[in-house]
Amino acid sequence: MARTLAHKLIASHLVDGDLTPGSEVAIAIDQTLTQDATGTLVMQELEALGLTRARTETSVQYVDHNLLQADEKNAEDHNFLRSASQRFGAWFSKPGNGVSHPTHMQRFGVPGKTMVGSDSHTCAAGSLGMLAIGVGGLEVALAIAGHPLRVRMPEIWGVRLTGELPPWVSAKDVILEMLRRHGVSGGIGRIIEYHGPGLSGLSAMDRHVIANMGAELGATTSVFPSDSAVRDFLRAEGREDDFEPLAADADATYDVEDHLDLSALEPLIARPSAPDNVVPVHEVAGTDISQVVIGSSANPGLRDFAIAAAIVRGRQTDHAVSFDINPTSREILEDLTRMGATFDLIAAGARIHQAGCMGCIGMGQAPAVGQNSLRTFPRNFPGRSGTREDSVWLCSPETAAAAALTGVITDPRELGQDYPELALPEKASMNTAMLVPPLPEEQARAVELIKGPNITALPDFQQLPDELSAPVLLKTGDDISTDEISPAGAEALPLRSNIPALAEFTFTRVSPDYPRRARDHPDGHIVVGGHNYGQGSSREHAAITPRYLGLRAVIAKSFARIHWQNLANFGIVPLEFTDPEDYADIRLDDTLVLEDLREALATGTELDVHNTTRDHTYRVRHRLSPKQVEAVVAGGVIPLLASQP
Amino acid sequence: MARTLAHKLIASHLVDGDLTPGSEVAIAIDQTLTQDATGTLVMQELEALGLTRARTETSVQYVDHNLLQADEKNAEDHNFLRSASQRFGAWFSKPGNGVSHPTHMQRFGVPGKTMVGSDSHTCAAGSLGMLAIGVGGLEVALAIAGHPLRVRMPEIWGVRLTGELPPWVSAKDVILEMLRRHGVSGGIGRIIEYHGPGLSGLSAMDRHVIANMGAELGATTSVFPSDSAVRDFLRAEGREDDFEPLAADADATYDVEDHLDLSALEPLIARPSAPDNVVPVHEVAGTDISQVVIGSSANPGLRDFAIAAAIVRGRQTDHAVSFDINPTSREILEDLTRMGATFDLIAAGARIHQAGCMGCIGMGQAPAVGQNSLRTFPRNFPGRSGTREDSVWLCSPETAAAAALTGVITDPRELGQDYPELALPEKASMNTAMLVPPLPEEQARAVELIKGPNITALPDFQQLPDELSAPVLLKTGDDISTDEISPAGAEALPLRSNIPALAEFTFTRVSPDYPRRARDHPDGHIVVGGHNYGQGSSREHAAITPRYLGLRAVIAKSFARIHWQNLANFGIVPLEFTDPEDYADIRLDDTLVLEDLREALATGTELDVHNTTRDHTYRVRHRLSPKQVEAVVAGGVIPLLASQP
Repeated sequence: MARTLAHKLIASHLVDGDLTPGSEVAIAIDQTLTQDATGTLVMQELEALGLTRARTETSVQYVDHNLLQADEKNAEDHNFLRSASQRFGAWFSKPGNGVSHPTHMQRFGVPGKTMVGSDSHTCAAGSLGMLAIGVGGLEVALAIAGHPLRVRMPEIWGVRLTGELPPWVSAKDVILEMLRRHGVSGGIGRIIEYHGPGLSGLSAMDRHVIANMGAELGATTSVFPSDSAVRDFLRAEGREDDFEPLAADADATYDVEDHLDLSALEPLIARPSAPDNVVPVHEVAGTDISQVVIGSSANPGLRDFAIAAAIVRGRQTDHAVSFDINPTSREILEDLTRMGATFDLIAAGARIHQAGCMGCIGMGQAPAVGQNSLRTFPRNFPGRSGTREDSVWLCSPETAAAAALTGVITDPRELGQDYPELALPEKASMNTAMLVPPLPEEQARAVELIKGPNITALPDFQQLPDELSAPVLLKTGDDISTDEISPAGAEALPLRSNIPALAEFTFTRVSPDYPRRARDHPDGHIVVGGHNYGQGSSREHAAITPRYLGLRAVIAKSFARIHWQNLANFGIVPLEFTDPEDYADIRLDDTLVLEDLREALATGTELDVHNTTRDHTYRVRHRLSPKQVEAVVAGGVIPLLASQP
Repeated sequence: MARTLAHKLIASHLVDGDLTPGSEVAIAIDQTLTQDATGTLVMQELEALGLTRARTETSVQYVDHNLLQADEKNAEDHNFLRSASQRFGAWFSKPGNGVSHPTHMQRFGVPGKTMVGSDSHTCAAGSLGMLAIGVGGLEVALAIAGHPLRVRMPEIWGVRLTGELPPWVSAKDVILEMLRRHGVSGGIGRIIEYHGPGLSGLSAMDRHVIANMGAELGATTSVFPSDSAVRDFLRAEGREDDFEPLAADADATYDVEDHLDLSALEPLIARPSAPDNVVPVHEVAGTDISQVVIGSSANPGLRDFAIAAAIVRGRQTDHAVSFDINPTSREILEDLTRMGATFDLIAAGARIHQAGCMGCIGMGQAPAVGQNSLRTFPRNFPGRSGTREDSVWLCSPETAAAAALTGVITDPRELGQDYPELALPEKASMNTAMLVPPLPEEQARAVELIKGPNITALPDFQQLPDELSAPVLLKTGDDISTDEISPAGAEALPLRSNIPALAEFTFTRVSPDYPRRARDHPDGHIVVGGHNYGQGSSREHAAITPRYLGLRAVIAKSFARIHWQNLANFGIVPLEFTDPEDYADIRLDDTLVLEDLREALATGTELDVHNTTRDHTYRVRHRLSPKQVEAVVAGGVIPLLASQP
C-alpha cells in the first residue's frame, strides 16, 4: 500500500502499536532537544530517574530563553545546565549560540530521524524530513533514558502546494494563510504533510518557517520531504553526508486532503492577540506602530534577516519606531555580518541583540502599553511580550521591514522598491565555538551538578484520592494558553527551576488571586475549561505549578495535545465533557464530586461528575491509556517510576 | 599670570565669583547631557519650572540605561523622553544609539565648551578640552533653563605624563594606576589636568578612558588639552570645523603637582569590590573566571573593541566563559562591523549586545554568585552587576580578552602573541539615523508630553523644621556609594520615574528594613555616615528617595561632591563632624536634636548636635552657600523656586 512520508517515518521507528489513527503507538526516539526554560526540569528529572548516560543518538541542551541575566538566577541555571549536560552525555549549546530550532537544524538535523523536544516548536525540524514532536519535559527525559514516545496515532493531513510565491510574499505568509483558513485548533490530532510541485520554490529554511508554526495550528507535527532543497541546505552546512532522500509514495493518499496555491497568496498579518486573527496587510495599512522586531524561530533564516536588510539598505527607519533585530543563531549572525547585511541593518537604525528567543517569550524588548508592535514571531497571545496590555501583530520580514521604514503598517508591495534579489552564501559559517561536546563516559560520571540557590528539588506529589470532592476555583474560556496558565516573561521565567516561587504566578494573568485561593483549599481543587485548553508552549510548568497548588482535575471541552499529556504526567486528571453544553451549567466555586475515581479511570472511558452545589450530574470522558491511568493514580509518572523497583 | 587650561575654561565662562579654591563660582553652561535613568526626573523638573525652550547651545537626551524592556515601563520612559525632548528643544538619542558619553563626544563634543550632565561620568568629555561636570538632575534642569552652575572652585591637580605605554598596556591601566596611587577619594575637590609629553601617544578616545574614570577618583572633572589628537578625532567624525587648539600656558603651575611615567606601567586590575583595589594582573593570574564583558563608557572606543577582536581572532574563547560584547555606540558598532572586527568577535564565541550601558549599571548579563567576572567597566561596587554577592574585576580590553581565551585571569603579555597593530578607519561612520533633532520652536510648543502609568509627578517636599529631633536610623561606614543608597539594577531602575515605588529600594542593600523603619518615624530621621559619603553615580534619586522616606539630615565625616549637592537640592541638611572621632560615639537609634536649625544654618558654618540618648553634644559644620541654605530651609530647590514669583 502506498504510504505517506509521515507513515514511513513512524513505521521505521515503531516499537509498539499500529498506525490506525487514534490508537497508541510507541516510537523510538533518535534525538532530543531541550532549552533552558524547560531543560532545568528535564535535568532534574534525569537525576531523579538515576540516569547514567543518555541513550539517544544525539541530545542537545540549548540556552536561548533566559539570556537577560537581570540577576544571578539565569547564570546559575546556565551553570547547572552545562554541568548536567556533561554529566548525562549531552551537547551543551552556550548562551548566545542561538535559538534551539534553527541551531539544531543547522548542526544536528538529519532526514529520517525522530526527535522529541521540550519546546512546542520542536516540530520545525520537520523541514528536513524529520519526525519531530514537541512534548513535555518529562517525556524528553524518558526519551533520553531510552524509552519510546507513546502518542495517539494522528491523522495525516496532506497539503498539496502548487504555484510559486509572488514577489514580497514569503514562507510566513504561507503559514499565516493556513492559520487564517483553519484557526489555532485546526491541526489538533493531525500531522501536516506538505507535498506537491510548489515545494520546489521553498528552501529548507522556508519550510522551517512553515513547520515551526504548525504548532500554532495545534498539529502534532509537520513533515516536509527530504529533497534537493534539503540536500542544498546540508551541503551549505558541511553535512551533505547526512542527506537521505525521503518522500511519500507517489500515489499515497491522506486522511485529510488539502490544497494551497502559493501564487494566489498576498502579504498577510495576524492582528492582536491570536495567531489566527489573520487579515491581508492592505486591510490594516496605515496603522501607527512603535516597534518592529525581526527574529525568532518563526523567521530564523539568514534569508529572513537578509531580506529585511536589503529592504532598509541606505534608508532610515522611522524616528518613532524601535527597530529590533534578534538574530536566531550565532552562525546566522556570522553569515549576516560577512555578507554586509549586519552593517546595512545597523546603518538604517537597528538595535542588534544577542542570538536567542528574547521578546518572543517576553524576555526583553517589551513594547509600551497599547502601542502596536510588528513582529516576525510565531505567537501574539495577550501579555506574552512582557507587557500586560500589549498589541502585538505577526507578519513576514518583508512586511515588518516596510513598516520600520514608514512608521505605519505597510503592504511591502507599496514601498515602490523592486523586490530585492538576495545572493546568499553557498557555504554557511560552520562554527562550533559555542557548542560544548559530550564528555567521554568515564569523565562524565565524575561531573558534579552545579546547583545554585535558585535550583530547588522537584516537589513531592501525592497519589490521586479515590473520592475527589473539590471546588471549581477557575472557569476559563476557549483557547486558554500555557502562557496564561504559567506565564513566561522576565519576572517568572528566571524561576523555572524553583517551583514554589514560580507557582505564585500560576493563572495570575486571568485570575490574579488564584494562587491564594488555591492555598485556601489544601484538599485540592478543579478547573473547568473550554475548547483547546492549554494551547501554546509545551512548558510542563503549566501542569506542575497548578498541581503544586492543589489542582487535581481539569474538565474541559477539549485539550491541546502537549498540555493534556503534561497534565497526565503530573497526576492531574484531564476530563472532557461528553456534552459540551454542561460547561455552561458550572459556576465558579461550585463543588464537584468524583467518586470511585481510580476504579472508574481504570475500567472505563466515561465517568460521572456530581455538582453538589446544583445537584446536577455530568458525564465526562477520559482519553488516558492504561499506562497513563496508572501514572495519574500514582500521582504522576515520577512517583510511579519511583515506586517501581 | 600663567594659567592652567582648567582656569582658562572656567574664566571664559565665569558669571560670578573668582578662582580662589573653595570659593563659590558661577559658570555659564553651553551644553547638557542627560540619560534616561536620571533624565525623566530632569524633564519632570523642566515641566515644574515651566520652561518653554532650552537656553543652552546644545542639550541632548540619551537613552542608554534602561534598554532591557522586561516589561512596558522602559518603553514608556522612552516615549516620555522623546516627547519631552521635542517639547523643550533638545536632541533625542534613541534607544540603541549608544552610551551618552562616547556618543556625545562623537557627535556634539566641542573643545572649550562647558557641559553639565546628570551622570557622574559626564567628565569624560574632558578628553576634548571641555569642562564637563557630572551633577544632579536638578542642576542640569537649571542649566537647560539658562542658570549658571554654582560650584566651589576646585584645586587644580596637574598630572604630567611622560614616556609611552608599553605593548599590552593601554589607557585603562593609566587610570587604574591613578586609582592604585590615590584611591576613590583622592580627587575630591580637585580638577585633574593632564599635560606633558606623554600625551602625544594617547588618542582622544584613550583620554576619554582616563577622563571618564576620574569620577572614580572623586574628582570634580578631568581636563585634557585640545591638540592634534583632538583634531584627528574631530576630523574622523567629520567635524574638523569644531576644532580649536587649547592648552595650559607653558609656565603654568598647579595647586598639586604630580607625575606619571607611562613607560613604567604594566597591566593592572581592580579586584572586587572597589575601583581602587588595584594590583598588577600577574599577581592574580590563574584565578578562574566565568565571564568577560567588554564595553561601557570606561572603554568605549573603536580601538577598545578592535584590540579585543584582534586578540581573539581565529581562536576560541574558553567553554566555561561567557564572552559578552557591549558596543558603546551604534556608530562604533558600525565601524567595528565594517572593519571585520565584529565578525572576528562572533567567530570566537562572543555574545553581541545592543549599544548601551547594560551590565555596567546592572541591566543584564549579571554573573552567578561568587563567580569572577572581568569587565572593562568603571565600577565594581558590591551588587552593582545585578548579583548581590558578585565578584567583579575591572581591567583593560587586552587583559579581558586574554582571560576570555584562557578561562583564567591572564597577563596579556603571557599570551605568546605579538601585540596587534590596529588599522582603524580614518573616517568614522557618521550617521544620525537614531538622533532625533530638536523641533522648531513653534512646533515644539505644541508637543504633548506622553506620560504612561509609570511616570508619576514629583512628590511635595515640606520645609525644614526649626527644631529637628530625630532618631539615627542608619549608620554607614566610609565610601558608601549611591548604588547602596538607591540601587540600579533590573528591579529598581525601571522605577526611576516612580518615586514612591523606587523608595522601597532605598538603602536595602545595607539595611533591608530601612524603608519600613523610616515609615515608622513619620516625623523624620537622620543618617550618620563615614568618609566620602555618597560616592559614585550622580543619581539624585539617592537624595530624593530617602527624603521621600523622611531623611532630614546626614552627618558624615565627609561627602562626595555630587551627592552633597543633591542632598542640599532636595532639602536634606549635609553636615560634617568637626571632630571625626564623634562618629564613633553615635549608635543606631540614638536621638539627635538640632535646635534653631534655620537660624544656625543661615548665620554660621558650625552648629551643635545634641545626642539626647547619651547626653553628648557634637560640633558639626556645613559648607552650604547662602543660596543653598535658602533652598534647604525651603525644603529644596523646587519648593523654593515654586514659592518665588
